[in-house]
Amino acid sequence: MANSVPWALSHTQVVIEVVATLAFALSGVIEGARKRLDAVGICVVAGLAAFGGGTVRDVLLDRRPLFWMQHAGWIWVLLALCVAAMVFMRARHLEPTERAMQWPDALGLGLFTAVGTQIALDAGMPAIVAVVLGMVTAVFGGVLRDIVCNEIPRAFSDHRPYAVCAFAGGWVMVLAHSLAWPQWGALLAAAGTACMLRMAALWLNWRLPAWQAG
Amino acid sequence: MANSVPWALSHTQVVIEVVATLAFALSGVIEGARKRLDAVGICVVAGLAAFGGGTVRDVLLDRRPLFWMQHAGWIWVLLALCVAAMVFMRARHLEPTERAMQWPDALGLGLFTAVGTQIALDAGMPAIVAVVLGMVTAVFGGVLRDIVCNEIPRAFSDHRPYAVCAFAGGWVMVLAHSLAWPQWGALLAAAGTACMLRMAALWLNWRLPAWQAG
Amino acid sequence: MANSVPWALSHTQVVIEVVATLAFALSGVIEGARKRLDAVGICVVAGLAAFGGGTVRDVLLDRRPLFWMQHAGWIWVLLALCVAAMVFMRARHLEPTERAMQWPDALGLGLFTAVGTQIALDAGMPAIVAVVLGMVTAVFGGVLRDIVCNEIPRAFSDHRPYAVCAFAGGWVMVLAHSLAWPQWGALLAAAGTACMLRMAALWLNWRLPAWQAG
Repeated sequence: MANSVPWALSHTQVVIEVVATLAFALSGVIEGARKRLDAVGICVVAGLAAFGGGTVRDVLLDRRPLFWMQHAGWIWVLLALCVAAMVFMRARHLEPTERAMQWPDALGLGLFTAVGTQIALDAGMPAIVAVVLGMVTAVFGGVLRDIVCNEIPRAFSDHRPYAVCAFAGGWVMVLAHSLAWPQWGALLAAAGTACMLRMAALWLNWRLPAWQAG
Repeated sequence: MANSVPWALSHTQVVIEVVATLAFALSGVIEGARKRLDAVGICVVAGLAAFGGGTVRDVLLDRRPLFWMQHAGWIWVLLALCVAAMVFMRARHLEPTERAMQWPDALGLGLFTAVGTQIALDAGMPAIVAVVLGMVTAVFGGVLRDIVCNEIPRAFSDHRPYAVCAFAGGWVMVLAHSLAWPQWGALLAAAGTACMLRMAALWLNWRLPAWQAG
Repeated sequence: MANSVPWALSHTQVVIEVVATLAFALSGVIEGARKRLDAVGICVVAGLAAFGGGTVRDVLLDRRPLFWMQHAGWIWVLLALCVAAMVFMRARHLEPTERAMQWPDALGLGLFTAVGTQIALDAGMPAIVAVVLGMVTAVFGGVLRDIVCNEIPRAFSDHRPYAVCAFAGGWVMVLAHSLAWPQWGALLAAAGTACMLRMAALWLNWRLPAWQAG
């Protein structure tokens, strides 16, 4: 999907996408380790976190082959990452803090939103559907991770803007698309918006409204 | 799918379908609020409850576009409903009782069963598969809602006939189909059966058998 | 998919497949009964355990019709099994032990792995993807069963080799495929490997490594 992106930017995108996928996978490793899953369970949860969002989007859009089927090398990268993370955490008795994860995760949120929304627009979806599918791409990996770990998905319950940043980024992509921006500009604007909003939300400690009972 | 239904009935069907979808969405809002989800989580759970059953059915049948992709306006209606419900519940400190939900939910159960079974029959599925898919349409929205909220799905655990009413309604649709009834008659008979059974079960306090240990 | 298997073996395979599907279904009945689901919930959980893995694989591969749609008779067999199991357990106040389930479950693991991997290879998937899909076929029925029952999937958390046996069996299938073995030989070798490994793991009490915090 990066065909029309200039060469240098295309490589930037690949780097960010790698960082994002690995960040999501690492969030799965950490959550799995916290829940005392065994080594196999940790790999599966990491895989769900990394590839789950895009897979749900593609199943809903009936798009094949799935990303991890077409680029099967990524499954090896994921396995290597999981093994390395487990060995490292065992050796160092180190638990990567949630805070350290937040910045690559915010990058991942932005890029997955932009890519997911664009794929849906290219498939001819109406704007709101494309935005929802961009959000699904960015958020449902973590949702599947949390469901398998028997938790209420953090994206829906921690009262910090997460999916809503993806929502805003998706609309930027829709706007850029309707203005016929070049693909790399649209991707950059959408990913940047979602990512910046997420970072601002973390930094300034924004809270989402909740419904308080009685 | 309402092409062959007479105009007046078709409009009745739309009205009931709206009521049903909104009732299912509202059940998601209530469950999400109970579980202290944030505003975004509540909207997602409401969306899963309203569109989840039909989406699972269409993915299993490989039917596209999905309902909410084709009729994207419904996503806006859903968002408006969620915002309105949250504002209203905040303002009134009011928790809609589960009892008040039961009647529109029963209507929704009936109609989603009838429509889901018919779609599966039209896709050439054998009778038992069509009935199962009608049940999936009616029940899996609530199942996804409860899974995301980290609960055992109520449809499987509260020992009240729910899915089984959909099962019975589905067979009425199969029968009507094999007797070549007009579509509107078949829809009415199937939806009516499922809905009446559910109402009778609630009214007369029917209980499903369970397996008691020891 | 058994066309090229010699007649006698093909019947052996059908017998094993029946045993495997019923063993998985029975595991769902037992888990559902433990969780105090009602009769309908038990049937649904049994169906997810029996057909869930193959259904997820086929949705990911975009393969239709699904097994239980094409061979609808199996839904009746499943319903009959559930009713029989519930009646039997009520009458005898008997809880089938987890140990008694382990041997047919190991058989099922082996055969589902072999069949799932082969289907993915026939669909032109790369080796690692085929192995992952074989694992999904064998393991995700139980995963869906545990998610609906609001448990962390046992396959990922009980620290006994389960998915990893399927992983090994899948590679045997890939190897046999690349050596152009006849289909029945490949199926037998792969299913045998996964099944034997699982039995050895149970017998010799092998444990998977876990990440121990601090």
